[in-house]
Amino acid sequence: MNEFDVIRRISGILPDQPPEVLVPVGDDCAVVRLGGEPWLAASDMLISGYHFGAWATPEEVGYKAVAVNVSDVAAMGGTPRFVLLSGGAPDPETTLRCMEGALEACRELGVYPLGGDTTRADALTVDASILGGLTPGMQPVLRSGARPGDLLAVTGELGASAAGFLALEAGRRGEAERLVRRHLRPEPRVEAGRAAAAAGVRAMIDLSDGLASDVRHLCESSGVGCRIELDRLPVAEDTRFFAGSEGREPEVLAATGGEDYELLLAAPEGVLRQMTGACEVPVSVVGEITAHREVEFLRGGEVRSPLSGWDHFPAEE
Amino acid sequence: MNEFDVIRRISGILPDQPPEVLVPVGDDCAVVRLGGEPWLAASDMLISGYHFGAWATPEEVGYKAVAVNVSDVAAMGGTPRFVLLSGGAPDPETTLRCMEGALEACRELGVYPLGGDTTRADALTVDASILGGLTPGMQPVLRSGARPGDLLAVTGELGASAAGFLALEAGRRGEAERLVRRHLRPEPRVEAGRAAAAAGVRAMIDLSDGLASDVRHLCESSGVGCRIELDRLPVAEDTRFFAGSEGREPEVLAATGGEDYELLLAAPEGVLRQMTGACEVPVSVVGEITAHREVEFLRGGEVRSPLSGWDHFPAEE
Repeated sequence: MNEFDVIRRISGILPDQPPEVLVPVGDDCAVVRLGGEPWLAASDMLISGYHFGAWATPEEVGYKAVAVNVSDVAAMGGTPRFVLLSGGAPDPETTLRCMEGALEACRELGVYPLGGDTTRADALTVDASILGGLTPGMQPVLRSGARPGDLLAVTGELGASAAGFLALEAGRRGEAERLVRRHLRPEPRVEAGRAAAAAGVRAMIDLSDGLASDVRHLCESSGVGCRIELDRLPVAEDTRFFAGSEGREPEVLAATGGEDYELLLAAPEGVLRQMTGACEVPVSVVGEITAHREVEFLRGGEVRSPLSGWDHFPAEE
Repeated sequence: MNEFDVIRRISGILPDQPPEVLVPVGDDCAVVRLGGEPWLAASDMLISGYHFGAWATPEEVGYKAVAVNVSDVAAMGGTPRFVLLSGGAPDPETTLRCMEGALEACRELGVYPLGGDTTRADALTVDASILGGLTPGMQPVLRSGARPGDLLAVTGELGASAAGFLALEAGRRGEAERLVRRHLRPEPRVEAGRAAAAAGVRAMIDLSDGLASDVRHLCESSGVGCRIELDRLPVAEDTRFFAGSEGREPEVLAATGGEDYELLLAAPEGVLRQMTGACEVPVSVVGEITAHREVEFLRGGEVRSPLSGWDHFPAEE
């Protein structure tokens, strides 16, 4: 049983769905009607030793917990509004520092903390829940709308966060400050997500587990496949250089590393052009949606599969 | 620095409060206007080794995580509606069992799970966030409305959960099944909370840290004091018997033990009578609100203070 099996098993034993629930568990956010308006809801938990090592300060952990939740709202085309924050640590000073980082993220990302819980824990643990709104008249962008012929595109850059993680793990933080910052302080693509929703992008997901894993979720939800060209992934020079210095193939790291918190989207070319014109962050076409249900990564015309992303409970263990 | 210091420090560095936030952090729930309606929001985290021992099954932990959040909504006079559930455990089977318990609580307590997160963790950890609604036209009951002369009353019974905890810790589960059940499967007082709101109860809080600690929160928020008679605490016979067998004074255990998830309320006598007539759970008067800002526990006319409840980061450590 792996993480996705757990989620599938849970999804099979849910109570009856009330009429206010417009999109249940299974997408980046659920969509629920509150006071007659659609709201987005999600949560994400970070735990020391699994999501970060001793190299992360409590403030950085708190910041990231809020940012990754904001990214879930961005991936639906929404506007992040409110969070609840639960934090546990071995001592109250660490809890306070973690919450200070979380509140810094709240200020920077424009969300307001409604409350939460603090407790003692052996491992620094933080869980954030988020509520996001939708622009009136706008539909949330789900994972399930991709159609054969749509282009696949990503915002920003891939692999920088994974390279930053390698730098942190190798004790090379000082050599790769930009990459480390990409890992510890993700910049959720709220503006790009809203532009995607406004343009009519057909499917969207945020890249948390890694492109190779997340594109599979999008394709499975949509009942399609895809072809991605590794050479088209937007990988920055410093990412390439650092990946190489750690003996990693940059494009493979970019496809599998995870935690980019960029958006992956599927849309017809015209829609994509409209979205690209309406947002500041660059958008790169990396492949296309196909009718056969396979996810293929190509390099120089050759199929280079399988690649896979992050799984919290990998099957081999 | 203790848990309440952490919360105070956090409260001092919050971002600017948006106009939709009607009641910020600091009560059982925040109150926020969503789609023009007031909604209640809260979260609570449970961690193995701190909130429960090896005696709790993962299902029991999941159940309780949902129930204690429902209790926060009950304490505002609201109706629990939706939860988000994040769970971490050393293996996916344990995560799944914890989520199964949480979903059982969702079905029994009438809340719908919108989503969440699962991950790997050394210690079984579960965090639940809840959204609750209010009956149209009804105001949420805060902690801050108590006035001198109000009666103080509690729903149900006190100390049974603490006695159940003693039984679990002592390996005497089989001798005290009802008490253990009170500890592991709290019955949040949703109906009583709504009846309290409808009758116009002035202040309310749920008993999670223990009467001695929670009454202090209510009094501090209201700028009042109180006098509680230990002999009036509703303590069941089996709680008395078991507490005695563990060398504990039953009324002191009832006042300090915590995790009762009953409601403590302050109201004029007529309001209290109206509420009592409208709900099934018994309500017992245990004392009264006073003008001087002290919390006094009396026994046979003698002051018996200080008593204190649970603190996750006690100052002496």
